[in-house]
Amino acid sequence: MNQKLFFLLLACLFVLSGVAHYAHFGTVAEFIISALAILFVAGFLGKATESVSHYAGQRLGGFLNATFGNAAELIIAIFLVRAGLFDMVKASITGSIIGNLLLVLGASVLLGGLKYKEQRFNVQLASHNSSLMILAVIALGIPAIFISTQHFSAHKSELLSLTIAGILIVAYVLWLIFSMITHKDVLADVEETTPDHGEEAAWSKTTSVLFLVLATVMTAFVSEWLVSTLHTFTAKFGFSEVFIGAFLIAIVGNAAEHSAAVMLAMKNKIGAAVEIAVGSSLQIALFVAPVLILVSTFFGPTMDIVFSPIELAAIAVSVFIAKSISKDGTTNWYEGSLLIFVYIILGISFYLV
Amino acid sequence: MNQKLFFLLLACLFVLSGVAHYAHFGTVAEFIISALAILFVAGFLGKATESVSHYAGQRLGGFLNATFGNAAELIIAIFLVRAGLFDMVKASITGSIIGNLLLVLGASVLLGGLKYKEQRFNVQLASHNSSLMILAVIALGIPAIFISTQHFSAHKSELLSLTIAGILIVAYVLWLIFSMITHKDVLADVEETTPDHGEEAAWSKTTSVLFLVLATVMTAFVSEWLVSTLHTFTAKFGFSEVFIGAFLIAIVGNAAEHSAAVMLAMKNKIGAAVEIAVGSSLQIALFVAPVLILVSTFFGPTMDIVFSPIELAAIAVSVFIAKSISKDGTTNWYEGSLLIFVYIILGISFYLV
Amino acid sequence: MNQKLFFLLLACLFVLSGVAHYAHFGTVAEFIISALAILFVAGFLGKATESVSHYAGQRLGGFLNATFGNAAELIIAIFLVRAGLFDMVKASITGSIIGNLLLVLGASVLLGGLKYKEQRFNVQLASHNSSLMILAVIALGIPAIFISTQHFSAHKSELLSLTIAGILIVAYVLWLIFSMITHKDVLADVEETTPDHGEEAAWSKTTSVLFLVLATVMTAFVSEWLVSTLHTFTAKFGFSEVFIGAFLIAIVGNAAEHSAAVMLAMKNKIGAAVEIAVGSSLQIALFVAPVLILVSTFFGPTMDIVFSPIELAAIAVSVFIAKSISKDGTTNWYEGSLLIFVYIILGISFYLV
Repeated sequence: MNQKLFFLLLACLFVLSGVAHYAHFGTVAEFIISALAILFVAGFLGKATESVSHYAGQRLGGFLNATFGNAAELIIAIFLVRAGLFDMVKASITGSIIGNLLLVLGASVLLGGLKYKEQRFNVQLASHNSSLMILAVIALGIPAIFISTQHFSAHKSELLSLTIAGILIVAYVLWLIFSMITHKDVLADVEETTPDHGEEAAWSKTTSVLFLVLATVMTAFVSEWLVSTLHTFTAKFGFSEVFIGAFLIAIVGNAAEHSAAVMLAMKNKIGAAVEIAVGSSLQIALFVAPVLILVSTFFGPTMDIVFSPIELAAIAVSVFIAKSISKDGTTNWYEGSLLIFVYIILGISFYLV
Repeated sequence: MNQKLFFLLLACLFVLSGVAHYAHFGTVAEFIISALAILFVAGFLGKATESVSHYAGQRLGGFLNATFGNAAELIIAIFLVRAGLFDMVKASITGSIIGNLLLVLGASVLLGGLKYKEQRFNVQLASHNSSLMILAVIALGIPAIFISTQHFSAHKSELLSLTIAGILIVAYVLWLIFSMITHKDVLADVEETTPDHGEEAAWSKTTSVLFLVLATVMTAFVSEWLVSTLHTFTAKFGFSEVFIGAFLIAIVGNAAEHSAAVMLAMKNKIGAAVEIAVGSSLQIALFVAPVLILVSTFFGPTMDIVFSPIELAAIAVSVFIAKSISKDGTTNWYEGSLLIFVYIILGISFYLV
Repeated sequence: MNQKLFFLLLACLFVLSGVAHYAHFGTVAEFIISALAILFVAGFLGKATESVSHYAGQRLGGFLNATFGNAAELIIAIFLVRAGLFDMVKASITGSIIGNLLLVLGASVLLGGLKYKEQRFNVQLASHNSSLMILAVIALGIPAIFISTQHFSAHKSELLSLTIAGILIVAYVLWLIFSMITHKDVLADVEETTPDHGEEAAWSKTTSVLFLVLATVMTAFVSEWLVSTLHTFTAKFGFSEVFIGAFLIAIVGNAAEHSAAVMLAMKNKIGAAVEIAVGSSLQIALFVAPVLILVSTFFGPTMDIVFSPIELAAIAVSVFIAKSISKDGTTNWYEGSLLIFVYIILGISFYLV
């Protein structure tokens, strides 16, 4: 698409979406406009990320993207926590994790795999990512098993939740030290099979960074406007709150990662796509979730870390299928379709709840 | 054994078994005769498969064998579905999966491993097979978790069952496209360590194919005659229906795969043996099970996809131990014995139910 | 530390601990003295093991160490079984398995990893170990799933427990035959990255073996004196019996493996450290646990093999995280810290029960 036309549509839809939100155009109109707008801001974010990653190296670019994308989700979730909607928060955490591991990763692997027969990425990184995801499953699952079988008091449940939240944040900080400082070289991406020698970045280094920040802010705003319509809008169609949290909010909130990851996969940069999808899941599980638990203590009763059995089952099966598919460091279209099949099975199950 | 003697015994036992069945010799006599007959028809099927695989290449040979073997099981299960014996059907699906993953694979790996110190097969194929088995566990497990914790209505349960059945069949068809067309070369077997240069096939190409079809038809008949005796016969010994479905029917129904896989493993063609055992499990889980659910809607109430906790536990542990053992692409006798130990543990547990 | 000073303190503390025990100094004094003593006897055991392993080769040295270390635990547990304290026995079995897989392995990998950027060991061995650990999880988990959902009679439960105990012991004996005889060479350690050419053993071959035996006997005595204080001592602080069994007894009982494994890891012999930690877990699960069940039949009612859901969850998550981390045959400090985080999460959860 012509770049000028793209920016024109982006600006128009962004402004129109804001006007629709603050002038209360009505839920249906607001939903449609903001859903259209988010496609463009996410596309903008994807292009800016790609441009920055051209300068920063694929892995740091992927990390930046995951961070910026989840900043939007963290802000939305903090508002939900302040409103005491703990079940909706947990459902959206669940939805973000499975959305990234199944839908974002699945679409990237499928679409990348339709173009390239086999795509390769650093198997060391995949191995560490899967160990971290298992830590996340354990940290979220153990409280549920203990509390459901042993009848913990509310006080003990709170203590356990806060302790595990603290451990997860420490584990996340140590992971950043490990992957950015002490073992940066080990986790670097393997050389791409199709080197993009001579390919120019879309914008200059400074412009790329500014655009990345701008795109992230715009994404956060539009996401919020879209989310504000979901409750009323979907109530008319009889969706349950857990389905809205786990699927609609999560898909909208991850649209940025989604488009960026798919775009990278289709340029054969599957390593960066995996980094975005899995890195984003890890950040949700190891950083966003525990921060929300700690934040909840400032607003009133502490949100506990006890997820429902169906949420834990969804997270666990997503981690296992993603781990099984990514462990050999190669991907193909069929593996992408498997991830999407599991996402559809979970989606239908949550829809029927 | 002399080939003429073999065919003579095969023909005699097949005819005798048929006569015993239709002339109602009595349950005990019918059971013994048909059990003896099945050893010979299964041996015949194994030899025919091996001969065909000599012409078709190991992998296609393995696939053909799994298809033919499961055709018999599918026919038997359709009769059970028509009779409304849903629990028996699910038990036999469970038993076929664990029988193939533990008993057939275990015996092949053990007996092959006693002859050869280490046997190797294509690790790429093992990786894809294990991802598919995880999909099967998820597809069979998710409905049980959601329905047991969320109290679905019968209508929702039926809707979920039919949707998941549809997804599994699509996944299976895509897998055939992937493994037979788009990525055929990637999944080809590694070269055998002991090349069978100069080894002659038992029969000509046409004869091999005809014998394969004939052997499959004979196996289906004898299996059915044998199964028809099981209910009465085993009732005298106090076996539960779930034990009969999960162990006796499954062992008898998989005798063909069993002998063919073991024979191949002992000729150091462990890749073909793994393909038979795992491929047969996959076909049961991704094709036979969903087809039976769809077929049940034509006969009356839809069979749901909700397996009992012990059936799901049995399937899940079988997949995990088989995955753990096959993931490195090498096998030895000890790994075979581990699979058989798990089969015995499950067998005793089901027996005591 | 000066070697003479070390032996002097070792002897003094050992004697003092024995005197304190038999002269009933009071629980607090006995606890402190024996806890100090165990540090020295464990240190002595570690040095003796290292010296023996210098002569015997790393792997056999590791195996010897695990055997000797668990001899002490087996003796303690037999006394507990005779006293009918089945819950305490199962908790200490659980605690030994997770203590070895998480704390001992975690500390070795973490401390070794802080010194060496990446440590390598035989990936074949890791693969077999993880298959064996999965067998252990299945063997301990299946009875719990069947008995909790199917209401087995006491007689059936006993029969199932004894059969599975027998299978586990056979599997363990076959594993020794496999790893010591038929496939000894396959499982040999990879060459160390820092060869210890010219490093002298502390003692002569004969002295090393004598010291290993002596150290083991001393460890068993001091462990028992320490354990005898735990019940009274910890009752004052309100710890539950399951926490004492799973954490205090297990930590004390595994102090020997702990110090030996960490010492080896810090000399870059991570292969031997993994062998101690994982080998010890395997021996507990596949040998100590079934022997205790068989032994219990001689003293009165048979101890069943049914572990509580939280114990099984703890064992299963330990196996999965340890498997995920060890499967690539390389370790680093971050992987060690992940194991310790899971240990802390489990420790807090058991503490709050």
